[in-house]
Amino acid sequence: MIRAGIIGATGYAGAEIVRILLAHKEVELVWYGSRSYVDQKFSSIYGNMFKIVENICKADDIEALAEEADVIFTATPQGLCASIVNEDVLSKTKVIDLSADFRLKDVKVYEQWYKIEHKAPQYIDEAVYGLCEINREDVKKARIVANPGCYTTCSILSMYPLVKEGLVDVNSIIVDAKSGTSGAGRSAKTANLFCEVNENIKAYGVASHRHTPEIEEQLTYAAGEPVMINFTPHLVPMNRGILVTAYAALKDPEITYEKVRAAYEKYYGNEYFIRLLDKDVCAETRWVEGSNFVDIGFKIDPRTHRIIVMGALDNLVKGAAGQAVQNMNLMFGFDENEGLRMPPVFP
Amino acid sequence: MIRAGIIGATGYAGAEIVRILLAHKEVELVWYGSRSYVDQKFSSIYGNMFKIVENICKADDIEALAEEADVIFTATPQGLCASIVNEDVLSKTKVIDLSADFRLKDVKVYEQWYKIEHKAPQYIDEAVYGLCEINREDVKKARIVANPGCYTTCSILSMYPLVKEGLVDVNSIIVDAKSGTSGAGRSAKTANLFCEVNENIKAYGVASHRHTPEIEEQLTYAAGEPVMINFTPHLVPMNRGILVTAYAALKDPEITYEKVRAAYEKYYGNEYFIRLLDKDVCAETRWVEGSNFVDIGFKIDPRTHRIIVMGALDNLVKGAAGQAVQNMNLMFGFDENEGLRMPPVFP
Amino acid sequence: MIRAGIIGATGYAGAEIVRILLAHKEVELVWYGSRSYVDQKFSSIYGNMFKIVENICKADDIEALAEEADVIFTATPQGLCASIVNEDVLSKTKVIDLSADFRLKDVKVYEQWYKIEHKAPQYIDEAVYGLCEINREDVKKARIVANPGCYTTCSILSMYPLVKEGLVDVNSIIVDAKSGTSGAGRSAKTANLFCEVNENIKAYGVASHRHTPEIEEQLTYAAGEPVMINFTPHLVPMNRGILVTAYAALKDPEITYEKVRAAYEKYYGNEYFIRLLDKDVCAETRWVEGSNFVDIGFKIDPRTHRIIVMGALDNLVKGAAGQAVQNMNLMFGFDENEGLRMPPVFP
Amino acid sequence: MIRAGIIGATGYAGAEIVRILLAHKEVELVWYGSRSYVDQKFSSIYGNMFKIVENICKADDIEALAEEADVIFTATPQGLCASIVNEDVLSKTKVIDLSADFRLKDVKVYEQWYKIEHKAPQYIDEAVYGLCEINREDVKKARIVANPGCYTTCSILSMYPLVKEGLVDVNSIIVDAKSGTSGAGRSAKTANLFCEVNENIKAYGVASHRHTPEIEEQLTYAAGEPVMINFTPHLVPMNRGILVTAYAALKDPEITYEKVRAAYEKYYGNEYFIRLLDKDVCAETRWVEGSNFVDIGFKIDPRTHRIIVMGALDNLVKGAAGQAVQNMNLMFGFDENEGLRMPPVFP
Repeated sequence: MIRAGIIGATGYAGAEIVRILLAHKEVELVWYGSRSYVDQKFSSIYGNMFKIVENICKADDIEALAEEADVIFTATPQGLCASIVNEDVLSKTKVIDLSADFRLKDVKVYEQWYKIEHKAPQYIDEAVYGLCEINREDVKKARIVANPGCYTTCSILSMYPLVKEGLVDVNSIIVDAKSGTSGAGRSAKTANLFCEVNENIKAYGVASHRHTPEIEEQLTYAAGEPVMINFTPHLVPMNRGILVTAYAALKDPEITYEKVRAAYEKYYGNEYFIRLLDKDVCAETRWVEGSNFVDIGFKIDPRTHRIIVMGALDNLVKGAAGQAVQNMNLMFGFDENEGLRMPPVFP
Repeated sequence: MIRAGIIGATGYAGAEIVRILLAHKEVELVWYGSRSYVDQKFSSIYGNMFKIVENICKADDIEALAEEADVIFTATPQGLCASIVNEDVLSKTKVIDLSADFRLKDVKVYEQWYKIEHKAPQYIDEAVYGLCEINREDVKKARIVANPGCYTTCSILSMYPLVKEGLVDVNSIIVDAKSGTSGAGRSAKTANLFCEVNENIKAYGVASHRHTPEIEEQLTYAAGEPVMINFTPHLVPMNRGILVTAYAALKDPEITYEKVRAAYEKYYGNEYFIRLLDKDVCAETRWVEGSNFVDIGFKIDPRTHRIIVMGALDNLVKGAAGQAVQNMNLMFGFDENEGLRMPPVFP
Repeated sequence: MIRAGIIGATGYAGAEIVRILLAHKEVELVWYGSRSYVDQKFSSIYGNMFKIVENICKADDIEALAEEADVIFTATPQGLCASIVNEDVLSKTKVIDLSADFRLKDVKVYEQWYKIEHKAPQYIDEAVYGLCEINREDVKKARIVANPGCYTTCSILSMYPLVKEGLVDVNSIIVDAKSGTSGAGRSAKTANLFCEVNENIKAYGVASHRHTPEIEEQLTYAAGEPVMINFTPHLVPMNRGILVTAYAALKDPEITYEKVRAAYEKYYGNEYFIRLLDKDVCAETRWVEGSNFVDIGFKIDPRTHRIIVMGALDNLVKGAAGQAVQNMNLMFGFDENEGLRMPPVFP
Repeated sequence: MIRAGIIGATGYAGAEIVRILLAHKEVELVWYGSRSYVDQKFSSIYGNMFKIVENICKADDIEALAEEADVIFTATPQGLCASIVNEDVLSKTKVIDLSADFRLKDVKVYEQWYKIEHKAPQYIDEAVYGLCEINREDVKKARIVANPGCYTTCSILSMYPLVKEGLVDVNSIIVDAKSGTSGAGRSAKTANLFCEVNENIKAYGVASHRHTPEIEEQLTYAAGEPVMINFTPHLVPMNRGILVTAYAALKDPEITYEKVRAAYEKYYGNEYFIRLLDKDVCAETRWVEGSNFVDIGFKIDPRTHRIIVMGALDNLVKGAAGQAVQNMNLMFGFDENEGLRMPPVFP
């Protein structure tokens, strides 16, 4: 039994870590950190936890928390984790950061896309990019894990076998992604009001979204050559879910479904959380809602010799809190699926 | 470890039993009955269960199922359970019927409201009305349980302490209820298409909905005198959830919040699944989604001397599948909460 | 051709006045007032008006506006209109106030329910309550009109004939109302975020909502005796629409459908904007969306001798901007329907 | 004043023609054709038209209708129009077909993608593809117009200037499209139930959707060389709206925003219904809802030298009924905007 704390427990991702850890056999949650709701009952903010969680929200004080916890989740805006993590903290506890602070290995790329100065560049090299299915062994040994973004998890996992096996032209990749609104967070903004989001779909961050370099970096590692993509996120009037529709030109125009399938099986055949869909089945966000699964399907277009890959996950689970817990399981030697076996909820 | 089967596993309520039993430690699910999808993989119909449930749907054959299962859930339209249950079946297995067939003790009332002939009136007396918090002891001994309706569970639990303790005029009760659309089932009807339900709210079954006599019968038992109510259901553009807003005249116009609260505490203070909300907190369906909880709050209007009670539950869980499993737990001596401790999912 | 100005044009109700007046033959809109968006293009805030409205938002300056406009709509929070209206303004222009400032005739009731001091009580008597179908003749002569609230318009119109004709016990009235989310306005509040409203229904303002005394006052005039009601609003995950489900005890338990129908026909038979639904048809918000219609249907329960009345309107049109324009039409002698004949949009 | 009739008036597109023609000064609607609702009041099926449309639905009898109407809209499933149109009909009336029957000039392509035999190939050549902004002059002279599909209208108009001016590599075009659910029609299918569509996004018809050859044919005409694209439609949980996100490689990697903008201005600068958005503004479906506008914006990615074009329209208006009326206006010499000037409705 280890003890865990959350900095930023009252955001949607933080609250989802709470939900998941409640059913985790090896973890006691001892710290519900918050900036806005200190000294208030957590369940007064998240009514679903009424009579389940009796804890009071504490300040986002990583020093005090490091004394009490074996692992700290930082579910906070960009820049915060980098500004508070230090050697003292890392000597006492492990850190899983759900923000982007330690995801990009080149600090200049980080500062260029995020427009903030990085306050702890000395930990960038050490931090492990916590995409469990790809970096499992490194995660096991990490003190600090950079938990991947929601769009990036879905995009990378959808394309990884194709890129790794050299089946597609890496300069042809286009990722058109669609997300539910919980990805926008819980802070009060006019653009995220019900009446602004409902009955609407729009693209945003076109050719400029911050998850772009994160996807490119990881696919570059897989390809062994520089990968540059187009990534376009869209906002969908639903609570949860990310769907990625990715396009790429196949190097071999005569390649068969079976051969591509084999590439996916090679990397994901034994993965519990990645479900390779049957032929001609398209991924849908409803089938993964509330779970840590990623569903991936693909279709080859014999006319254009492109492959269309569709991946779906729950942005708050595999795209955030679930993957963070999966990383924690790896770091502490627990069963990788512990606390994460809940089936998707439908409808 | 017992074995369970479902007749009607491919409806929304049946599929929710599947989801719940997957995490139940004492039950193996051996029969996925269906009328429309025999010989198809269950997970081809409910994609959330892909790679989780490998079973093939079987016919709705209760005789064969009774040989294999210790308990049978019938999640089927009105009339079906009554037409197939018999002494042979009941000698081999227990039956939990999610339809209305055995809920009303007066067969004439049943036939008048449901417009069908009852095919097994001989079991009406024996059947126990499975509102666990009220009839717990009887459920434990039952061979056949009539699982309450979704609206009725929410309505009765919201009003029970007030009626039982004689705090309200039983002829003044008005129940205005609102339901998500999964309550309408999964069969293809124009009225339930997305574009017909979305961006709309409407009442239906006004002064004629079939859950009316069921609520009245149970409240009559509680009151010890005949109760007649107005019940108005509404269809809300959301997937899950029932909210009941109930109105009644308080017998004592000077009664305090504390005294009414004490009545609720008397009956529900120790109930795991009933959460009495703090003063001035109104029940909301989002806080119970995906769980077996019922949230109940109330407000006294000092101007009109009426009490307004608000109750919320998930129609597919406490309003159907969850309560059915709760009944099963009681019938087999399992921990009453087994398989049902999942916290509500939000957002 | 008259000239009109809007103070508060960038709220949902203000923007709906813009939409309606664009098709009005007798009005030129000369002033788009705003507090938050001064000097910005109106169409940069409401993209639907791109290339349709080229105007720039101006300050909410009623003195300057009174020089330019024949009529001013104030679509602003409570208290603002009362704090800026004066004799100079009213000598130059007519005012239609969409806030509650001049709706209640007793300033003490206003200050008690709204918790603010009334800054212009001298105009309360003069102001006409602009429920056109009830107060048409007075509206025609008014300098200042108090445009009714959205819930109140729907509630009063649904119950008026019953109360006026003495068919129901006025102390038995319960109004259970449901509203789309645009009624909550466009300011950034966490409670109105998409993920907080979507997949949820809740009551709010129970036994304390400010529209209660407004409904009571108008029904008291109709009844000729004091009316006290229960009013419970609910928030529904949809953009537009209010549905009222109202309950009352019938004085004559043997009264026929036809007799009640005749009462409704007496008052509404010639009203263009009130559509009395056919027998057994329930009002639905989808059938009035985008239009100035109010749909009203009712059902008599022969078991409880209560009547259940259902009324539906679009809260931004008949519940706000549409009724404001209807009032303007009356005040200036235009065809009452001018600019308001658009049929409801479905789906 | 001309007389119009609709075959298929009770589908969503047919009903939208009704809504639009109600405000059209030059047209009287004399025939509400239906297969399922003959002899029923139109307003009993579309409650929004209660007290507005008093007509009774008639059979889908084109022969009788041709006697009474100057123009016939066929808003029916594929194959129907081709099976009933003939010289006699065309000698008496004009036909605007909202189905795909006369959109593709190569009958083999039609039969291959639609899997049905074409019953009236003799009219394919004569039929004018009714994309008004492109084929305006031909439409004016047509007896029979093939009204474009919803996805195709949005896709073609978004890409047309780029292709026509030779600014992009026509073999690089990828169209990722997202549609509201009204595009799926009003027939009762499980897949279109509220609970199946709500809280979900999915692709469908991947590499096989029937609008693909239609887009390709028209872009081929514009390019003067064969165009082959990838087209992927997605279903979004909203009622109305199509958003197209299209990707293409720019031939000149150094091309400026201004030069691309000039191409769009060249073709659309004077078009009433096409709104070229300001720089960096992305199209959103909410800004066109209920109107005949198409909003188009684009962004150049200097990293990948691709252009991302975003187009939005209301699938029932510019994507179906509105464009049909626009075609009618052209065919009869009316003002092209007559009946179509309604501003978009928001929220």
